[in-house]
Amino acid sequence: MGGALGDVLIRAGRITRIGQQLSVSDVEVPVADGGGGILLPAFVDAHMHLDKTFWGEPWRPHSAGPTVADRIENERTLRREMRLPPARQAERLVRQAVSRGTTHIRTHVDVDTDVKLENFDGVLEARDRVRSLATIQIVAFPQSGVLSRPGTVELLEAALRGGAELVGGIDPATIDRDPAGQLDAIFDLAERFGVGVDIHLHDAGELGALQLRMIADRTRALGMQGRVSVSHAFCLGMVDETERERLLALLVELRISIMTNAPGDRPFPPIRRLRDAGVTVFSGSDGVRDAWTPFGTADMLERAFLLAYRSGFRTDEGLALALDIATRGGAAVIGLGDYGVDVGCAANLVVVPGETQGDLVVARPARTLVIRDGRVVAKDGHCI
Amino acid sequence: MGGALGDVLIRAGRITRIGQQLSVSDVEVPVADGGGGILLPAFVDAHMHLDKTFWGEPWRPHSAGPTVADRIENERTLRREMRLPPARQAERLVRQAVSRGTTHIRTHVDVDTDVKLENFDGVLEARDRVRSLATIQIVAFPQSGVLSRPGTVELLEAALRGGAELVGGIDPATIDRDPAGQLDAIFDLAERFGVGVDIHLHDAGELGALQLRMIADRTRALGMQGRVSVSHAFCLGMVDETERERLLALLVELRISIMTNAPGDRPFPPIRRLRDAGVTVFSGSDGVRDAWTPFGTADMLERAFLLAYRSGFRTDEGLALALDIATRGGAAVIGLGDYGVDVGCAANLVVVPGETQGDLVVARPARTLVIRDGRVVAKDGHCI
Repeated sequence: MGGALGDVLIRAGRITRIGQQLSVSDVEVPVADGGGGILLPAFVDAHMHLDKTFWGEPWRPHSAGPTVADRIENERTLRREMRLPPARQAERLVRQAVSRGTTHIRTHVDVDTDVKLENFDGVLEARDRVRSLATIQIVAFPQSGVLSRPGTVELLEAALRGGAELVGGIDPATIDRDPAGQLDAIFDLAERFGVGVDIHLHDAGELGALQLRMIADRTRALGMQGRVSVSHAFCLGMVDETERERLLALLVELRISIMTNAPGDRPFPPIRRLRDAGVTVFSGSDGVRDAWTPFGTADMLERAFLLAYRSGFRTDEGLALALDIATRGGAAVIGLGDYGVDVGCAANLVVVPGETQGDLVVARPARTLVIRDGRVVAKDGHCI
Repeated sequence: MGGALGDVLIRAGRITRIGQQLSVSDVEVPVADGGGGILLPAFVDAHMHLDKTFWGEPWRPHSAGPTVADRIENERTLRREMRLPPARQAERLVRQAVSRGTTHIRTHVDVDTDVKLENFDGVLEARDRVRSLATIQIVAFPQSGVLSRPGTVELLEAALRGGAELVGGIDPATIDRDPAGQLDAIFDLAERFGVGVDIHLHDAGELGALQLRMIADRTRALGMQGRVSVSHAFCLGMVDETERERLLALLVELRISIMTNAPGDRPFPPIRRLRDAGVTVFSGSDGVRDAWTPFGTADMLERAFLLAYRSGFRTDEGLALALDIATRGGAAVIGLGDYGVDVGCAANLVVVPGETQGDLVVARPARTLVIRDGRVVAKDGHCI
């Protein structure tokens, strides 16, 4: 983590010793040279859309209008035209993410009455293929709404039966025009299948705040403390301080975690305030080169840079906080009990050349090594 | 620029032919392989602070308070403690900038009653040393204020006599508490020495807007149309639309150009609106790893990414606009008449691997070639 130079002994996928010049006489041990870089726990990219990236395809000019509804509609059209195989696309993007040091992913996967379970099945297939590179947690995501598209609940049920670990949602007020209805449907699924919830909430200001409260109500009623996430939650960066503090108190009480990717051109949750209040903050790449955005490199160190840049974090403490969100924040939300660079932790690690944690966030150099369950899976920026 | 694959013939530092598979039989011509990447005019980094970067020094935790005044004071203290040689530091940062594709720089150089002309002399020395890599335009910059530090005007005069091409200024209202006084002093210097003006204006909202108007008044009175720049001008992103449009009309009338580096955590000028109105917008790295900020890589392609990311530019047109600001915008402000990738232009060029201009802004890969006056000065991301 930027401390003293040392060796790390890994056995059976776990860190068993850390120290200076470890001598290991009892067994032949393969050695991976970190070149004196900084050892971090591997990144957790806890908000991706693996199923619909154009990664590896020719450049496609962005063609969507500015609103969430525009983008959903544009994507449905493109999807039909392009017909990219979700399994191949997901695998491509996972490999890119791994090359940048990520070994744990939470991905939302579109489930709607058009694609049905095609994307979900594709991501399941990719998940199996990349098992040795990364662990993937799947959110069954009703991208096109729930109530406004009859048949969606049944498809979500099928995805949950088929292995999705969480159920998603999206702007219950503006997409379905029935916030209570969408949230009741989602939480009902969560209860029946015993899964967590992760809801996209782009809705702004007071409209977003109302829905946060409605999510909190249902979290409390179902005893789902610690199992609900809200992604984006722009409203937390828009409402006045009094309202924001009331909302934070709810999030803390119900252990609702907040995902932000530090968007470039709109308000987003005030990260430091959330953390100081005790809210778990996590992050992710969100869309990477897809119908929603041309941006993205699936690089969580770059994401830490953006979190810091957008939040005005300049001190070492601030830069380390951004890095913490890209590592431990996501690990906490995904529920990785054995995460870190301590003896006993699973050996999911990344080595980045640099002097301090702050230096890494600022410079974002190629990753020297990426280690997954004790095995080197990427070297000098490339998957092996 | 992303068009057809072709060859470019350079002679005596200028582009003399562009075409497919040029045959050059009359003379032995050395060939530099661009690998099929995109040829762009080299970047123009038109707002740097070369004299005070910590580039190449060990990581130094950021230690300044949040206000401009805090940062000025903190920097003065650090400067006395660290005593980094400005010539060496400037040269280091220029080499980094060149490795990322920049060949033209406008740098502000601190001139105040503490450092006197030490930084200025250092940058002059560096400018001479890196002459074959980059052209550097110097702004004599009263970082600590003008009127509030008697003796500053005389130092600025000495810098202008010594070769500074422009005179700078900083927040006349908040730093000197006398906006008319500082602006009169600066414009008087500009008139007497026949130089341009580039003023740092961080002051917010109406306070910034007032000073923009005062700058416009003096630009008109002295007939300095096209020779005045305002750097940052956060106020243009803060005032209401009516006031903003009035200010834009003044900027257009007086050909006052606006520099933004797309700051992470504060409002900044609405780039597209400025461009549509006819304002010249340019950009720069601003501080790179110095007392003001730990951020920065002196990479204008990354700056184009930040301009686009912060402005919500997603279409090809928007991404190309960001790139245009990092190239032609700066070239116009610096006054490069022979800038571009056309026959007759000076051969200051950069080759970046990628498919389209948008792809370059999004992915920002290492530069394949950087060419300065027809000579390869950097290759695969490294100065040679």
